[in-house]
Amino acid sequence: MMQERPFDLLNKALGQQVLIRMKGSMVIRGRLKSFDAHMNLAIDNAEELEGGELKAKVGTMVLRGGNIVFVSPI
Amino acid sequence: MMQERPFDLLNKALGQQVLIRMKGSMVIRGRLKSFDAHMNLAIDNAEELEGGELKAKVGTMVLRGGNIVFVSPI
Amino acid sequence: MMQERPFDLLNKALGQQVLIRMKGSMVIRGRLKSFDAHMNLAIDNAEELEGGELKAKVGTMVLRGGNIVFVSPI
Amino acid sequence: MMQERPFDLLNKALGQQVLIRMKGSMVIRGRLKSFDAHMNLAIDNAEELEGGELKAKVGTMVLRGGNIVFVSPI
Amino acid sequence: MMQERPFDLLNKALGQQVLIRMKGSMVIRGRLKSFDAHMNLAIDNAEELEGGELKAKVGTMVLRGGNIVFVSPI
Amino acid sequence: MMQERPFDLLNKALGQQVLIRMKGSMVIRGRLKSFDAHMNLAIDNAEELEGGELKAKVGTMVLRGGNIVFVSPI
Amino acid sequence: MMQERPFDLLNKALGQQVLIRMKGSMVIRGRLKSFDAHMNLAIDNAEELEGGELKAKVGTMVLRGGNIVFVSPI
Repeated sequence: MMQERPFDLLNKALGQQVLIRMKGSMVIRGRLKSFDAHMNLAIDNAEELEGGELKAKVGTMVLRGGNIVFVSPI
Repeated sequence: MMQERPFDLLNKALGQQVLIRMKGSMVIRGRLKSFDAHMNLAIDNAEELEGGELKAKVGTMVLRGGNIVFVSPI
Repeated sequence: MMQERPFDLLNKALGQQVLIRMKGSMVIRGRLKSFDAHMNLAIDNAEELEGGELKAKVGTMVLRGGNIVFVSPI
Repeated sequence: MMQERPFDLLNKALGQQVLIRMKGSMVIRGRLKSFDAHMNLAIDNAEELEGGELKAKVGTMVLRGGNIVFVSPI
Repeated sequence: MMQERPFDLLNKALGQQVLIRMKGSMVIRGRLKSFDAHMNLAIDNAEELEGGELKAKVGTMVLRGGNIVFVSPI
Repeated sequence: MMQERPFDLLNKALGQQVLIRMKGSMVIRGRLKSFDAHMNLAIDNAEELEGGELKAKVGTMVLRGGNIVFVSPI
Repeated sequence: MMQERPFDLLNKALGQQVLIRMKGSMVIRGRLKSFDAHMNLAIDNAEELEGGELKAKVGTMVLRGGNIVFVSPI
Protein backbone atom coordinates (compact mmCIF):
# COMPACT_ATOMS: atom_id res chain seq x y z
CA MET A 1 0.00 0.00 0.00
CA MET A 2 1.39 3.42 -0.97
CA GLN A 3 1.82 5.86 1.88
CA GLU A 4 -0.52 8.84 1.86
CA ARG A 5 1.03 12.24 1.05
CA PRO A 6 -0.12 15.84 1.79
CA PHE A 7 -1.05 16.37 -1.88
CA ASP A 8 -3.59 13.54 -1.59
CA LEU A 9 -5.49 15.85 0.72
CA LEU A 10 -5.45 18.57 -1.99
CA ASN A 11 -6.65 16.00 -4.48
CA LYS A 12 -9.63 15.06 -2.30
CA ALA A 13 -10.42 18.77 -1.87
CA LEU A 14 -10.79 19.40 -5.64
CA GLY A 15 -14.16 21.04 -6.32
CA GLN A 16 -14.65 21.90 -2.65
CA GLN A 17 -14.39 25.02 -0.52
CA VAL A 18 -10.94 25.73 0.91
CA LEU A 19 -9.41 28.43 3.10
CA ILE A 20 -5.90 29.58 2.11
CA ARG A 21 -3.53 31.71 4.12
CA MET A 22 -0.79 33.48 2.15
CA LYS A 23 2.50 34.96 3.44
CA GLY A 24 1.86 38.50 4.66
CA SER A 25 -1.63 38.00 5.97
CA MET A 26 -3.96 37.59 2.99
CA VAL A 27 -6.69 34.97 3.55
CA ILE A 28 -8.62 33.58 0.58
CA ARG A 29 -11.75 31.43 0.61
CA GLY A 30 -13.02 29.72 -2.53
CA ARG A 31 -13.48 26.51 -4.51
CA LEU A 32 -10.29 24.57 -5.37
CA LYS A 33 -10.30 24.04 -9.14
CA SER A 34 -6.79 22.65 -9.64
CA PHE A 35 -3.26 22.53 -8.24
CA ASP A 36 0.20 21.54 -9.49
CA ALA A 37 3.45 20.15 -8.07
CA HIS A 38 4.56 23.63 -6.88
CA MET A 39 1.30 23.95 -4.90
CA ASN A 40 0.16 26.68 -7.29
CA LEU A 41 -3.63 26.73 -6.92
CA ALA A 42 -6.52 27.75 -9.18
CA ILE A 43 -9.50 28.96 -7.15
CA ASP A 44 -12.93 30.12 -8.28
CA ASN A 45 -15.66 31.95 -6.37
CA ALA A 46 -12.68 33.39 -4.50
CA GLU A 47 -13.23 35.88 -1.69
CA GLU A 48 -10.59 37.76 0.26
CA LEU A 49 -11.27 37.75 4.01
CA GLU A 50 -10.09 40.08 6.75
CA GLY A 51 -10.73 39.20 10.39
CA GLY A 52 -13.03 36.41 9.13
CA GLU A 53 -15.22 38.97 7.27
CA LEU A 54 -15.57 39.34 3.49
CA LYS A 55 -13.22 42.07 2.22
CA ALA A 56 -13.49 41.59 -1.57
CA LYS A 57 -14.93 39.17 -4.12
CA VAL A 58 -12.10 38.19 -6.48
CA GLY A 59 -13.77 35.56 -8.68
CA THR A 60 -11.20 33.27 -10.30
CA MET A 61 -7.53 33.39 -9.35
CA VAL A 62 -4.18 31.61 -9.56
CA LEU A 63 -2.31 31.62 -6.25
CA ARG A 64 1.45 31.12 -6.36
CA GLY A 65 2.47 28.08 -4.31
CA GLY A 66 5.66 29.61 -2.94
CA ASN A 67 3.68 32.23 -1.03
CA ILE A 68 1.16 29.84 0.53
CA VAL A 69 1.30 29.13 4.29
CA PHE A 70 -1.56 26.62 4.46
CA VAL A 71 -4.57 25.27 2.55
CA SER A 72 -7.52 23.95 4.55
CA PRO A 73 -10.68 22.26 3.19
CA ILE A 74 -13.74 23.76 4.93
CA MET B 1 -8.63 13.08 -19.85
CA MET B 2 -5.74 15.19 -18.60
CA GLN B 3 -6.31 16.87 -15.28
CA GLU B 4 -6.63 20.64 -15.40
CA ARG B 5 -3.74 22.66 -13.89
CA PRO B 6 -3.55 26.26 -12.57
CA PHE B 7 -1.56 27.36 -15.65
CA ASP B 8 -4.54 26.37 -17.85
CA LEU B 9 -6.34 29.27 -16.21
CA LEU B 10 -3.49 31.61 -17.22
CA ASN B 11 -3.68 30.20 -20.73
CA LYS B 12 -7.39 30.99 -20.98
CA ALA B 13 -6.71 34.51 -19.68
CA LEU B 14 -4.26 35.36 -22.51
CA GLY B 15 -5.35 38.60 -24.17
CA GLN B 16 -7.69 39.46 -21.32
CA GLN B 17 -7.67 41.85 -18.37
CA VAL B 18 -6.06 40.49 -15.20
CA LEU B 19 -5.40 41.83 -11.71
CA ILE B 20 -2.03 40.90 -10.17
CA ARG B 21 -0.94 41.30 -6.59
CA MET B 22 2.82 41.33 -5.98
CA LYS B 23 4.70 40.73 -2.71
CA GLY B 24 4.90 43.97 -0.76
CA SER B 25 1.59 45.46 -1.80
CA MET B 26 1.86 46.48 -5.44
CA VAL B 27 -1.32 45.78 -7.45
CA ILE B 28 -1.20 45.77 -11.25
CA ARG B 29 -4.12 45.71 -13.69
CA GLY B 30 -3.61 45.09 -17.40
CA ARG B 31 -3.88 42.73 -20.36
CA LEU B 32 -2.04 39.39 -20.08
CA LYS B 33 0.18 39.09 -23.16
CA SER B 34 2.23 36.02 -22.21
CA PHE B 35 3.57 33.92 -19.32
CA ASP B 36 6.22 31.26 -18.84
CA ALA B 37 6.86 28.26 -16.57
CA HIS B 38 8.20 30.51 -13.76
CA MET B 39 4.93 32.49 -13.86
CA ASN B 40 6.83 35.49 -15.25
CA LEU B 41 4.14 37.59 -16.95
CA ALA B 42 4.14 40.11 -19.78
CA ILE B 43 1.38 42.68 -19.34
CA ASP B 44 0.34 45.55 -21.58
CA ASN B 45 -1.91 48.53 -20.87
CA ALA B 46 -0.64 48.04 -17.33
CA GLU B 47 -1.81 50.31 -14.52
CA GLU B 48 -0.61 50.36 -10.96
CA LEU B 49 -3.48 50.60 -8.46
CA GLU B 50 -3.54 51.79 -4.86
CA GLY B 51 -6.66 51.28 -2.76
CA GLY B 52 -8.47 50.27 -5.97
CA GLU B 53 -7.65 53.67 -7.58
CA LEU B 54 -5.30 54.32 -10.51
CA LYS B 55 -1.84 55.34 -9.20
CA ALA B 56 0.23 55.21 -12.42
CA LYS B 57 -0.02 54.09 -16.04
CA VAL B 58 2.95 51.79 -16.71
CA GLY B 59 2.25 50.60 -20.26
CA THR B 60 4.03 47.32 -21.01
CA MET B 61 5.85 45.37 -18.31
CA VAL B 62 7.45 42.05 -17.39
CA LEU B 63 6.53 40.91 -13.87
CA ARG B 64 8.85 38.46 -12.19
CA GLY B 65 6.97 35.28 -11.23
CA GLY B 66 8.75 34.75 -7.92
CA ASN B 67 7.28 37.95 -6.52
CA ILE B 68 3.67 37.28 -7.58
CA VAL B 69 1.06 36.48 -4.90
CA PHE B 70 -1.90 35.95 -7.23
CA VAL B 71 -3.18 36.55 -10.77
CA SER B 72 -6.90 36.99 -11.30
CA PRO B 73 -8.75 37.37 -14.65
CA ILE B 74 -11.25 40.25 -14.35
CA MET C 1 23.24 0.11 10.15
CA MET C 2 21.78 3.11 8.38
CA GLN C 3 22.17 6.42 10.16
CA GLU C 4 18.99 7.96 11.53
CA ARG C 5 17.70 11.11 9.78
CA PRO C 6 15.36 13.94 10.94
CA PHE C 7 12.54 12.62 8.72
CA ASP C 8 12.59 9.35 10.70
CA LEU C 9 11.29 11.40 13.61
CA LEU C 10 8.42 12.67 11.40
CA ASN C 11 7.74 9.08 10.36
CA LYS C 12 7.45 7.94 13.98
CA ALA C 13 5.12 10.89 14.69
CA LEU C 14 2.56 9.84 12.03
CA GLY C 15 -0.88 9.61 13.61
CA GLN C 16 0.25 11.52 16.70
CA GLN C 17 -0.18 15.04 18.05
CA VAL C 18 2.44 17.55 16.89
CA LEU C 19 3.10 21.23 17.46
CA ILE C 20 4.23 23.23 14.40
CA ARG C 21 5.67 26.71 14.33
CA MET C 22 5.46 28.54 10.99
CA LYS C 23 7.47 31.58 9.81
CA GLY C 24 5.74 34.73 11.01
CA SER C 25 4.43 33.42 14.29
CA MET C 26 1.58 31.03 13.54
CA VAL C 27 1.53 27.97 15.82
CA ILE C 28 -0.54 24.90 14.84
CA ARG C 29 -1.36 21.87 16.97
CA GLY C 30 -2.91 18.74 15.47
CA ARG C 31 -2.50 15.15 14.35
CA LEU C 32 0.20 14.46 11.72
CA LYS C 33 -1.51 12.59 8.86
CA SER C 34 1.30 12.65 6.29
CA PHE C 35 4.39 14.49 5.07
CA ASP C 36 6.54 14.57 1.93
CA ALA C 37 10.17 15.23 0.97
CA HIS C 38 9.61 19.04 1.02
CA MET C 39 8.35 18.75 4.63
CA ASN C 40 4.85 19.68 3.43
CA LEU C 41 2.54 18.33 6.15
CA ALA C 42 -1.08 17.20 6.25
CA ILE C 43 -2.62 17.77 9.68
CA ASP C 44 -6.08 16.94 10.98
CA ASN C 45 -7.88 18.10 14.13
CA ALA C 46 -5.73 21.19 13.61
CA GLU C 47 -5.97 24.12 16.01
CA GLU C 48 -4.29 27.48 15.72
CA LEU C 49 -2.75 28.61 19.02
CA GLU C 50 -1.81 32.07 20.28
CA GLY C 51 0.16 32.46 23.48
CA GLY C 52 -0.45 28.74 24.12
CA GLU C 53 -4.27 29.29 24.02
CA LEU C 54 -6.69 28.02 21.35
CA LYS C 55 -7.32 30.78 18.75
CA ALA C 56 -9.23 28.84 16.06
CA LYS C 57 -10.18 25.27 15.13
CA VAL C 58 -9.02 24.69 11.55
CA GLY C 59 -9.83 21.00 11.03
CA THR C 60 -7.74 19.50 8.22
CA MET C 61 -4.93 21.43 6.58
CA VAL C 62 -1.88 21.19 4.31
CA LEU C 63 1.07 23.20 5.64
CA ARG C 64 3.73 24.24 3.14
CA GLY C 65 7.14 22.89 4.15
CA GLY C 66 9.11 25.95 3.09
CA ASN C 67 7.38 28.08 5.74
CA ILE C 68 7.87 25.66 8.64
CA VAL C 69 10.32 26.55 11.45
CA PHE C 70 9.91 23.38 13.51
CA VAL C 71 7.70 20.33 14.06
CA SER C 72 7.55 18.80 17.53
CA PRO C 73 5.69 15.61 18.60
CA ILE C 74 3.79 16.31 21.83
CA MET D 1 3.87 29.42 -34.57
CA MET D 2 5.76 29.53 -31.30
CA GLN D 3 3.89 31.13 -28.45
CA GLU D 4 5.26 34.45 -27.27
CA ARG D 5 6.97 34.50 -23.85
CA PRO D 6 7.68 37.34 -21.37
CA PHE D 7 11.39 37.29 -22.26
CA ASP D 8 10.49 38.18 -25.87
CA LEU D 9 9.43 41.53 -24.47
CA LEU D 10 12.86 41.95 -22.86
CA ASN D 11 14.44 40.98 -26.16
CA LYS D 12 12.51 43.69 -28.01
CA ALA D 13 13.51 46.21 -25.33
CA LEU D 14 17.27 45.69 -25.87
CA GLY D 15 18.92 49.05 -26.49
CA GLN D 16 15.91 50.95 -25.23
CA GLN D 17 14.96 52.81 -22.06
CA VAL D 18 13.42 50.70 -19.32
CA LEU D 19 12.12 51.32 -15.81
CA ILE D 20 12.95 48.65 -13.22
CA ARG D 21 11.49 48.27 -9.77
CA MET D 22 13.55 46.20 -7.31
CA LYS D 23 12.42 44.56 -4.04
CA GLY D 24 12.60 47.06 -1.23
CA SER D 25 11.69 50.16 -3.22
CA MET D 26 14.63 51.02 -5.47
CA VAL D 27 13.59 52.24 -8.92
CA ILE D 28 16.13 52.32 -11.75
CA ARG D 29 15.79 53.95 -15.19
CA GLY D 30 18.27 53.28 -17.96
CA ARG D 31 19.07 51.56 -21.27
CA LEU D 32 18.74 47.75 -21.33
CA LYS D 33 22.06 46.38 -22.62
CA SER D 34 21.55 42.66 -21.98
CA PHE D 35 19.72 40.07 -19.87
CA ASP D 36 20.07 36.37 -19.10
CA ALA D 37 17.83 33.43 -18.19
CA HIS D 38 17.77 34.48 -14.49
CA MET D 39 16.50 37.95 -15.53
CA ASN D 40 19.82 39.45 -14.45
CA LEU D 41 20.02 42.74 -16.38
CA ALA D 42 22.87 44.94 -17.58
CA ILE D 43 21.81 48.58 -17.72
CA ASP D 44 23.74 51.64 -18.90
CA ASN D 45 23.00 55.34 -18.41
CA ALA D 46 21.33 54.10 -15.24
CA GLU D 47 19.66 56.54 -12.87
CA GLU D 48 18.15 55.81 -9.48
CA LEU D 49 14.77 57.48 -9.01
CA GLU D 50 12.87 58.39 -5.86
CA GLY D 51 9.28 59.61 -6.09
CA GLY D 52 9.78 59.87 -9.86
CA GLU D 53 12.71 62.31 -9.37
CA LEU D 54 16.38 61.66 -10.13
CA LYS D 55 18.19 60.59 -6.93
CA ALA D 56 21.57 59.45 -8.33
CA LYS D 57 23.31 58.77 -11.65
CA VAL D 58 24.76 55.24 -11.45
CA GLY D 59 26.12 54.75 -14.98
CA THR D 60 26.45 51.07 -15.86
CA MET D 61 25.12 48.34 -13.57
CA VAL D 62 24.24 44.67 -13.29
CA LEU D 63 20.91 44.11 -11.52
CA ARG D 64 20.34 40.72 -9.94
CA GLY D 65 17.23 39.06 -11.40
CA GLY D 66 16.05 37.51 -8.16
CA ASN D 67 15.45 40.95 -6.64
CA ILE D 68 13.53 42.41 -9.59
CA VAL D 69 9.78 43.09 -9.25
CA PHE D 70 9.15 44.35 -12.77
CA VAL D 71 10.85 45.67 -15.91
CA SER D 72 8.96 48.10 -18.12
CA PRO D 73 10.07 49.55 -21.49
CA ILE D 74 9.41 53.30 -21.50
CA MET E 1 43.51 13.24 2.79
CA MET E 2 39.99 14.51 2.27
CA GLN E 3 39.38 18.11 3.22
CA GLU E 4 37.19 18.68 6.28
CA ARG E 5 33.70 20.14 5.65
CA PRO E 6 31.25 22.02 7.95
CA PHE E 7 28.98 18.96 8.15
CA ASP E 8 31.86 17.00 9.75
CA LEU E 9 31.39 19.30 12.72
CA LEU E 10 27.68 18.37 12.86
CA ASN E 11 28.67 14.71 12.64
CA LYS E 12 31.00 15.03 15.63
CA ALA E 13 28.24 16.83 17.56
CA LEU E 14 25.77 13.91 17.24
CA GLY E 15 24.49 12.95 20.69
CA GLN E 16 25.81 16.17 22.22
CA GLN E 17 24.29 19.45 23.39
CA VAL E 18 23.99 22.14 20.72
CA LEU E 19 22.69 25.71 20.59
CA ILE E 20 20.74 26.66 17.45
CA ARG E 21 19.71 30.11 16.31
CA MET E 22 16.82 30.27 13.84
CA LYS E 23 15.82 33.15 11.54
CA GLY E 24 13.58 35.54 13.45
CA SER E 25 15.19 35.18 16.83
CA MET E 26 14.26 31.76 18.20
CA VAL E 27 17.11 30.05 20.10
CA ILE E 28 16.94 26.31 20.80
CA ARG E 29 19.20 24.26 23.08
CA GLY E 30 19.12 20.46 23.06
CA ARG E 31 20.79 17.19 22.08
CA LEU E 32 21.53 16.70 18.35
CA LYS E 33 19.96 13.38 17.36
CA SER E 34 20.39 13.55 13.58
CA PHE E 35 20.74 15.86 10.57
CA ASP E 36 20.45 15.58 6.79
CA ALA E 37 21.93 17.22 3.68
CA HIS E 38 19.52 20.20 3.93
CA MET E 39 20.74 20.83 7.52
CA ASN E 40 17.33 19.75 8.84
CA LEU E 41 18.01 18.74 12.46
CA ALA E 42 16.34 16.39 14.92
CA ILE E 43 16.81 17.57 18.50
CA ASP E 44 15.71 15.98 21.76
CA ASN E 45 15.55 17.43 25.28
CA ALA E 46 14.97 20.67 23.38
CA GLU E 47 14.45 23.92 25.25
CA GLU E 48 13.56 27.29 23.79
CA LEU E 49 15.65 30.12 25.27
CA GLU E 50 15.00 33.84 25.47
CA GLY E 51 17.74 36.19 26.63
CA GLY E 52 19.72 33.09 27.67
CA GLU E 53 16.88 31.98 30.05
CA LEU E 54 14.62 28.94 29.63
CA LYS E 55 11.35 29.98 27.95
CA ALA E 56 9.77 26.58 27.20
CA LYS E 57 10.65 22.87 27.23
CA VAL E 58 9.82 21.49 23.78
CA GLY E 59 11.05 17.89 24.06
CA THR E 60 11.77 16.40 20.64
CA MET E 61 11.68 18.51 17.47
CA VAL E 62 12.60 18.66 13.80
CA LEU E 63 14.12 22.03 12.82
CA ARG E 64 13.94 23.00 9.17
CA GLY E 65 17.43 23.62 7.76
CA GLY E 66 16.46 26.55 5.58
CA ASN E 67 15.56 28.65 8.62
CA ILE E 68 18.73 27.94 10.61
CA VAL E 69 21.30 30.72 11.12
CA PHE E 70 23.87 28.70 13.08
CA VAL E 71 24.40 25.48 15.05
CA SER E 72 26.95 25.48 17.84
CA PRO E 73 28.07 22.48 19.99
CA ILE E 74 28.14 23.53 23.66
CA MET F 1 28.00 36.74 -33.06
CA MET F 2 27.16 35.64 -29.53
CA GLN F 3 24.73 37.88 -27.72
CA GLU F 4 26.18 39.87 -24.83
CA ARG F 5 25.11 38.85 -21.30
CA PRO F 6 25.09 40.75 -17.97
CA PHE F 7 28.05 38.70 -16.71
CA ASP F 8 30.16 40.07 -19.61
CA LEU F 9 29.90 43.40 -17.84
CA LEU F 10 31.25 41.81 -14.64
CA ASN F 11 34.04 40.26 -16.68
CA LYS F 12 35.05 43.64 -18.08
CA ALA F 13 34.97 45.11 -14.56
CA LEU F 14 37.57 42.64 -13.19
CA GLY F 15 40.37 44.57 -11.50
CA GLN F 16 38.34 47.76 -11.43
CA GLN F 17 36.42 49.72 -8.80
CA VAL F 18 32.79 48.70 -8.34
CA LEU F 19 29.93 49.80 -6.10
CA ILE F 20 27.73 47.03 -4.71
CA ARG F 21 24.40 47.37 -3.00
CA MET F 22 23.32 44.43 -0.82
CA LYS F 23 19.81 43.57 0.44
CA GLY F 24 19.09 45.45 3.63
CA SER F 25 21.03 48.60 2.80
CA MET F 26 24.74 47.79 2.96
CA VAL F 27 26.79 49.51 0.25
CA ILE F 28 30.30 48.29 -0.53
CA ARG F 29 32.95 49.95 -2.71
CA GLY F 30 36.10 48.13 -3.77
CA ARG F 31 38.08 46.38 -6.50
CA LEU F 32 36.40 43.39 -8.17
CA LYS F 33 38.84 40.48 -7.92
CA SER F 34 36.62 37.62 -9.11
CA PHE F 35 33.03 36.39 -9.44
CA ASP F 36 31.29 33.09 -10.09
CA ALA F 37 28.07 31.82 -11.68
CA HIS F 38 26.05 32.59 -8.51
CA MET F 39 27.28 36.22 -8.65
CA ASN F 40 29.35 35.61 -5.51
CA LEU F 41 32.03 38.32 -5.63
CA ALA F 42 35.53 38.65 -4.20
CA ILE F 43 36.39 42.28 -3.49
CA ASP F 44 39.60 43.82 -2.22
CA ASN F 45 40.29 47.30 -0.83
CA ALA F 46 36.65 47.06 0.22
CA GLU F 47 35.00 49.93 2.08
CA GLU F 48 31.54 50.01 3.58
CA LEU F 49 29.69 53.25 2.80
CA GLU F 50 26.77 54.93 4.54
CA GLY F 51 25.07 57.92 2.95
CA GLY F 52 27.94 58.02 0.43
CA GLU F 53 30.49 58.43 3.27
CA LEU F 54 33.12 55.90 4.37
CA LYS F 55 31.80 53.89 7.36
CA ALA F 56 34.44 51.14 7.65
CA LYS F 57 37.45 49.75 5.78
CA VAL F 58 36.88 46.00 5.34
CA GLY F 59 39.85 44.97 3.21
CA THR F 60 39.18 41.75 1.32
CA MET F 61 35.75 40.12 1.32
CA VAL F 62 33.54 37.53 -0.32
CA LEU F 63 29.99 38.81 -0.95
CA ARG F 64 27.25 36.21 -1.33
CA GLY F 65 25.52 36.58 -4.69
CA GLY F 66 22.03 35.83 -3.44
CA ASN F 67 22.03 38.98 -1.30
CA ILE F 68 23.28 41.36 -4.01
CA VAL F 69 20.89 43.97 -5.47
CA PHE F 70 23.27 45.49 -8.00
CA VAL F 71 26.93 45.78 -8.99
CA SER F 72 28.09 48.93 -10.76
CA PRO F 73 31.57 49.66 -12.19
CA ILE F 74 32.64 53.16 -11.12
CA MET G 1 45.60 29.52 -16.47
CA MET G 2 42.37 28.95 -14.59
CA GLN G 3 40.49 32.08 -13.61
CA GLU G 4 40.37 32.86 -9.91
CA ARG G 5 36.97 32.46 -8.18
CA PRO G 6 35.57 33.94 -4.92
CA PHE G 7 35.87 30.55 -3.18
CA ASP G 8 39.66 30.66 -3.75
CA LEU G 9 39.65 33.54 -1.28
CA LEU G 10 37.84 31.34 1.27
CA ASN G 11 40.36 28.59 0.60
CA LYS G 12 43.27 30.93 1.34
CA ALA G 13 41.52 32.06 4.54
CA LEU G 14 41.34 28.52 6.01
CA GLY G 15 42.84 28.53 9.50
CA GLN G 16 42.73 32.32 9.69
CA GLN G 17 40.56 34.90 11.43
CA VAL G 18 37.48 36.01 9.49
CA LEU G 19 34.62 38.41 10.10
CA ILE G 20 31.19 37.25 8.93
CA ARG G 21 28.03 39.30 8.61
CA MET G 22 24.77 37.35 8.59
CA LYS G 23 21.32 38.49 7.37
CA GLY G 24 19.54 40.34 10.16
CA SER G 25 22.58 41.94 11.72
CA MET G 26 24.56 39.24 13.49
CA VAL G 27 28.34 39.65 13.16
CA ILE G 28 30.67 36.73 13.96
CA ARG G 29 34.45 36.77 14.32
CA GLY G 30 36.47 33.56 14.49
CA ARG G 31 38.84 31.12 12.79
CA LEU G 32 37.63 29.60 9.49
CA LYS G 33 37.91 25.81 9.88
CA SER G 34 36.11 24.69 6.72
CA PHE G 35 33.48 25.63 4.11
CA ASP G 36 31.47 23.84 1.44
CA ALA G 37 29.90 24.60 -1.94
CA HIS G 38 26.83 26.24 -0.31
CA MET G 39 29.15 28.61 1.62
CA ASN G 40 28.24 26.85 4.87
CA LEU G 41 31.13 27.65 7.21
CA ALA G 42 32.63 25.96 10.26
CA ILE G 43 34.16 28.50 12.64
CA ASP G 44 36.04 27.98 15.89
CA ASN G 45 36.99 30.47 18.61
CA ALA G 46 33.82 32.22 17.41
CA GLU G 47 32.68 35.44 19.04
CA GLU G 48 29.48 37.35 18.38
CA LEU G 49 30.06 41.09 18.04
CA GLU G 50 27.70 44.02 18.47
CA GLY G 51 28.80 47.52 17.49
CA GLY G 52 32.34 46.12 17.12
CA GLU G 53 32.33 44.96 20.80
CA LEU G 54 32.32 41.37 22.06
CA LYS G 55 28.74 40.30 22.88
CA ALA G 56 29.19 36.53 23.45
CA LYS G 57 31.81 33.80 23.07
CA VAL G 58 30.21 31.01 21.03
CA GLY G 59 33.16 28.60 20.58
CA THR G 60 32.65 26.33 17.57
CA MET G 61 29.77 26.86 15.14
CA VAL G 62 28.37 25.96 11.74
CA LEU G 63 26.98 28.99 9.89
CA ARG G 64 24.40 28.34 7.18
CA GLY G 65 25.60 29.72 3.84
CA GLY G 66 22.22 30.96 2.67
CA ASN G 67 22.09 33.50 5.49
CA ILE G 68 25.58 34.93 4.98
CA VAL G 69 26.01 38.47 3.60
CA PHE G 70 29.81 38.54 3.51
CA VAL G 71 32.95 36.81 4.79
CA SER G 72 36.10 38.88 5.25
CA PRO G 73 39.58 37.63 6.27
CA ILE G 74 40.97 39.94 8.97
